[in-house]
Amino acid sequence: MTTDKGRYHHGNLRPTLLSVARALLEEGGPEALSLREIGRRAGVSAPAAYHYFSSLDAIAAALAERGFAELSERIDAALAGPRRHLLAGGIAYVAFARANPGLYRLMFGEGFQAYAKGNEAIGASRMRVYRQMKDDLEKRLAPEAVANAALFLWSLTHGLALLMIDGQIEPGVDPDAKAEEVLKLAGLGLPAAK
Amino acid sequence: MTTDKGRYHHGNLRPTLLSVARALLEEGGPEALSLREIGRRAGVSAPAAYHYFSSLDAIAAALAERGFAELSERIDAALAGPRRHLLAGGIAYVAFARANPGLYRLMFGEGFQAYAKGNEAIGASRMRVYRQMKDDLEKRLAPEAVANAALFLWSLTHGLALLMIDGQIEPGVDPDAKAEEVLKLAGLGLPAAK
Repeated sequence: MTTDKGRYHHGNLRPTLLSVARALLEEGGPEALSLREIGRRAGVSAPAAYHYFSSLDAIAAALAERGFAELSERIDAALAGPRRHLLAGGIAYVAFARANPGLYRLMFGEGFQAYAKGNEAIGASRMRVYRQMKDDLEKRLAPEAVANAALFLWSLTHGLALLMIDGQIEPGVDPDAKAEEVLKLAGLGLPAAK
Repeated sequence: MTTDKGRYHHGNLRPTLLSVARALLEEGGPEALSLREIGRRAGVSAPAAYHYFSSLDAIAAALAERGFAELSERIDAALAGPRRHLLAGGIAYVAFARANPGLYRLMFGEGFQAYAKGNEAIGASRMRVYRQMKDDLEKRLAPEAVANAALFLWSLTHGLALLMIDGQIEPGVDPDAKAEEVLKLAGLGLPAAK
């Protein structure tokens, strides 16, 4: 068995602790996260875990940052794909949230609100996701229309992701197809009155 | 001082406990809720509080139900007002969430997810809010378009409410005016490309 110092040197324990924390979060929500339990599952003492993360907030912040980075990669991949437009990015966004419900909620501060609000690294990684959407809108819209359009799209996508995580859509529906149908309305406006 | 029994008889303690719990929730989020602290602030023992609510979950459920009932009343009032259409209801929805951020989050299960999901009373009161929106859409849209339009509007409004609660809009902006500008896009679709 290596010492903590050896582990630190080899850089192995930090990602292990984070992946254990992430699994705990998805199993039991933010209240299931504790440095003691994270250490226990990783097979190290709580002080060894403290060596890498000074607090649970620091772990939550690292998870949130990682979450926004992954989300941003998924959106990039979708926008680079054959469909290449914002709808594909929105579908990828909602799929990420569905696949990582605990992480997605944490990314928006659930269980760690006070801390998440003041955290600049999280703010910066969140801003990167927002920019992906805004950049696309800037190509298409008049400058004065961009801010509201971006907030509109972000609200829609965030709300749909959370309602889907919460099980607020009919069971048996293909969630990707449903996300596409709903997000498409952003471009059309509501269907005309009959 | 009255006895617990006397209080129960006069029906005073239950609303007191709920209003104390609601204030605690807004001050410190779901983790600030405890039967002991609720009892302490209401000036009664924990067992006396238990007399009215068997668990913290029961208090959370009562708060969530009350929240959906209030939200529904606000939407009714907005729909009955001079503007009379769904946009007014959406603005009222977002304003309710902004005025009651802790309660709004609780209504969607924050801190009490497992419990909230299985609770029929919460489900029913939530459904009432959903119906207010759907009834309006049914007057205007073809039947096959209603379900997606309702999910679209609910996602947009829910997402906007949460982003505003989270402080994700520029400071100094009038939130009601901003909500109106953003929600209006639901009827228009995104502005045409320049």
